[in-house]
Amino acid sequence: MSDHLQQAFGYAKQQHDRFLHELIEFSALPSVSTDPAYLPAMQQTAEWVASQLRQAGVHNVGIHPTAGHPVVYGEWLGAGADAKTVLIYGHYDVQPAVIEDGWDSDPFKPEVRGENLFARGATDMKAQVLASIKAVEAILATGALPVNVKFMIEGEEEIGSPSLDAWMRANKDLLACDLALNPDTGMLAPNLPTITYALRGLAYFELRLSGPRNDLHSGVFGGAIHNPAQVLAELIAGMHDAEGRVTLPGFYDRVRPLNAEERAELARLPLDEQFFLAASGVPALWEGEAGYTAMERVGARPTLEINGMISGFTGPGSKTVLPAQAMAKISCRLVPDQDPAEVEAQLKAYLNTHAPKTVTWQVITMAGSPAAISDRESFGVQAMRKALESAWGTRPLFKREGGSVPVVTQFQRILGVESVNTGFALPDDNMHGPNEKTHLPTWAKGLHAFMYFFFNMAA
Amino acid sequence: MSDHLQQAFGYAKQQHDRFLHELIEFSALPSVSTDPAYLPAMQQTAEWVASQLRQAGVHNVGIHPTAGHPVVYGEWLGAGADAKTVLIYGHYDVQPAVIEDGWDSDPFKPEVRGENLFARGATDMKAQVLASIKAVEAILATGALPVNVKFMIEGEEEIGSPSLDAWMRANKDLLACDLALNPDTGMLAPNLPTITYALRGLAYFELRLSGPRNDLHSGVFGGAIHNPAQVLAELIAGMHDAEGRVTLPGFYDRVRPLNAEERAELARLPLDEQFFLAASGVPALWEGEAGYTAMERVGARPTLEINGMISGFTGPGSKTVLPAQAMAKISCRLVPDQDPAEVEAQLKAYLNTHAPKTVTWQVITMAGSPAAISDRESFGVQAMRKALESAWGTRPLFKREGGSVPVVTQFQRILGVESVNTGFALPDDNMHGPNEKTHLPTWAKGLHAFMYFFFNMAA
Repeated sequence: MSDHLQQAFGYAKQQHDRFLHELIEFSALPSVSTDPAYLPAMQQTAEWVASQLRQAGVHNVGIHPTAGHPVVYGEWLGAGADAKTVLIYGHYDVQPAVIEDGWDSDPFKPEVRGENLFARGATDMKAQVLASIKAVEAILATGALPVNVKFMIEGEEEIGSPSLDAWMRANKDLLACDLALNPDTGMLAPNLPTITYALRGLAYFELRLSGPRNDLHSGVFGGAIHNPAQVLAELIAGMHDAEGRVTLPGFYDRVRPLNAEERAELARLPLDEQFFLAASGVPALWEGEAGYTAMERVGARPTLEINGMISGFTGPGSKTVLPAQAMAKISCRLVPDQDPAEVEAQLKAYLNTHAPKTVTWQVITMAGSPAAISDRESFGVQAMRKALESAWGTRPLFKREGGSVPVVTQFQRILGVESVNTGFALPDDNMHGPNEKTHLPTWAKGLHAFMYFFFNMAA
Repeated sequence: MSDHLQQAFGYAKQQHDRFLHELIEFSALPSVSTDPAYLPAMQQTAEWVASQLRQAGVHNVGIHPTAGHPVVYGEWLGAGADAKTVLIYGHYDVQPAVIEDGWDSDPFKPEVRGENLFARGATDMKAQVLASIKAVEAILATGALPVNVKFMIEGEEEIGSPSLDAWMRANKDLLACDLALNPDTGMLAPNLPTITYALRGLAYFELRLSGPRNDLHSGVFGGAIHNPAQVLAELIAGMHDAEGRVTLPGFYDRVRPLNAEERAELARLPLDEQFFLAASGVPALWEGEAGYTAMERVGARPTLEINGMISGFTGPGSKTVLPAQAMAKISCRLVPDQDPAEVEAQLKAYLNTHAPKTVTWQVITMAGSPAAISDRESFGVQAMRKALESAWGTRPLFKREGGSVPVVTQFQRILGVESVNTGFALPDDNMHGPNEKTHLPTWAKGLHAFMYFFFNMAA
């Protein structure tokens, strides 16, 4: 380890309590991007991130407006034109959360309990964003960075990043780099650092059905009028066949088959059925798509999920209505080479064939991004592999991830660069659910890994 | 027409404006029985009804507590032991309503627009309750009633009358009568007075499914974990077969077949497909249970409806969760001789067979009452037939009703009496839906019909 790196480690150790305090401050900001009620909090959070970048010694820090929530940008280019430039990605927005969802403490009043910090957004991804900023701060406080860095911290990841594409295209030169670092993918266990080399894409829809012009008395009309809730249930039920396959016409046409070597490698990950049972608490695992293991279904195969549905009377007690409308939020996780626009067309083709004439339907597309795969032998991936090995003392795993990170595709398409996908969120961190938390000892190791990574990039 | 009846008509005409004012006052009371937030309004409404009975000249008026909402009772027994006694049934509670459901005016700020009064509960059934009280007031203000009357106005009809059975059993002697009058069934058009001789029963359930212990990230777990919203959709879809028949095992075992004469009579009602299309506003009618007309399916065949369902994220925007739970409100309309307890067992048998091991399920029974049929040749039905003919100048129709009136069964089982089922609610009165209203000229004719009825009962 170089002297400089050792000094940076010393600085991080010395400043640990302040870093933790700042993570708590960050996590307390209710930056819920999907809900207009939180607009002021979004602005406040962008400003908070900008002030952190300035405090770290980053230059040219600015809050860039977009059609939606702003992007926070900053850069440190002191390593010179011959050194590599890393674009560090992050998002400061979080999923919605209210304590009534089943939280043990207020989602926006962060609480340290044992080794964990509980708060909405703690692990997805405020801890990761702050660790990357603090790694830069520790190195700059004790010398110069061996690489140039740029930060691009957006505010719309949890709603599918609708404004990022246009903003990146408009700021292509500002963002020019050799490699993107995306610390928004997780790891498999506290002792298993992980690099994700494939990410599933996403196509998210709202399906709305309308039947009668208003809710009807179920006794007076029940039997004559097709119940939109029943129609929705029938349409949803028909979206999978008896073998767990998605029935949208052409859904699998572009799916790349898994080869034997990749299947063997995926089988070595500690993600067996027992893992999914324990992590979810379900009484039994789903058989899912026939012919694939749970790990393959989650990482390497496309899926269709119902994220929400509502119709009629859902309050306490009984109300004998025949509902006028029914709505479902439906999203598909995509794998290479599926295309979100094609999936939208497939969903509409399915509805054209299967929706009865007794209702009208409407599909609203809410988000779409294709899947991504990165080259495991690239210099960036190798620099991160070594960094994780140094920080944890163990060889990292390579995995395919079920979630989507649309920005990885944008790095390729707009900036022409590959990305390194890693992160320090654990499977039991309850990302998107109640009691989200981040594991503080893992967070500290992640901070070290970032520092190793910057030095490995210069080697 | 007797002199007395003529005087009573004169009194009603003279008092018309006050009667309307009182109907507006009654409809403004938010007597929503299903929601504990309206408990004070329920008590206030019971007191309002009691004061109306006293004002009409009814004796022994009292608000009788039950395990739930109170029953308002009153009687006038001045016709003597040899005269017939009619028990007049009604309910002062209403369905929930908020302006956001699609009302053009506040559901609890009654508004007269044209010939209609718009308010929640106006037609179901405050107008009918008040008309029966005002008929008695008009006759007593101008002489003596030719029959004895008792009023039993409950506060739990819209939640399945859970406390009425016990209260009626405990007050069997108080309620002793020759006939019950139930004005809670509708008519087919302003010029088509109607007697309902058969009512469907009701079995209402809440089905709750639980999968993972909390909402999961749909990317991380989608494909490995069975989505409870999808399971619910599949279970609901399976509850009807391809020919529109309910698949709960044994569901049709006790259903009385329709004979040719009854089918011919039902075919004469003006309730063809065009009627159901116009009244509901659907783009196309449901074919429903194969082999039956829309009118038969609504009145004479049992049905299963989804009254509501909810799962996961249903707010604005997108949230990529795999929901932990899914819930549906499911109710069956029953015909003779189906039994609500048997239907509950049939639903559970269906779930035992079809629910996958990937979720746990729970069925909560919210209401249950069997169907009822009354004798079209009884003296009460004949007295009402003539009364409606006198008030409207046209022969009334006889129909089977799709809705449930559990109390009709209780009249038979507890008091041993038949009931006459009529009412002045119109098909376009939006009962249970937004913009509920009552048609004021029809209300006035209904008031006359009640007066004729009391005199016909004495003839």
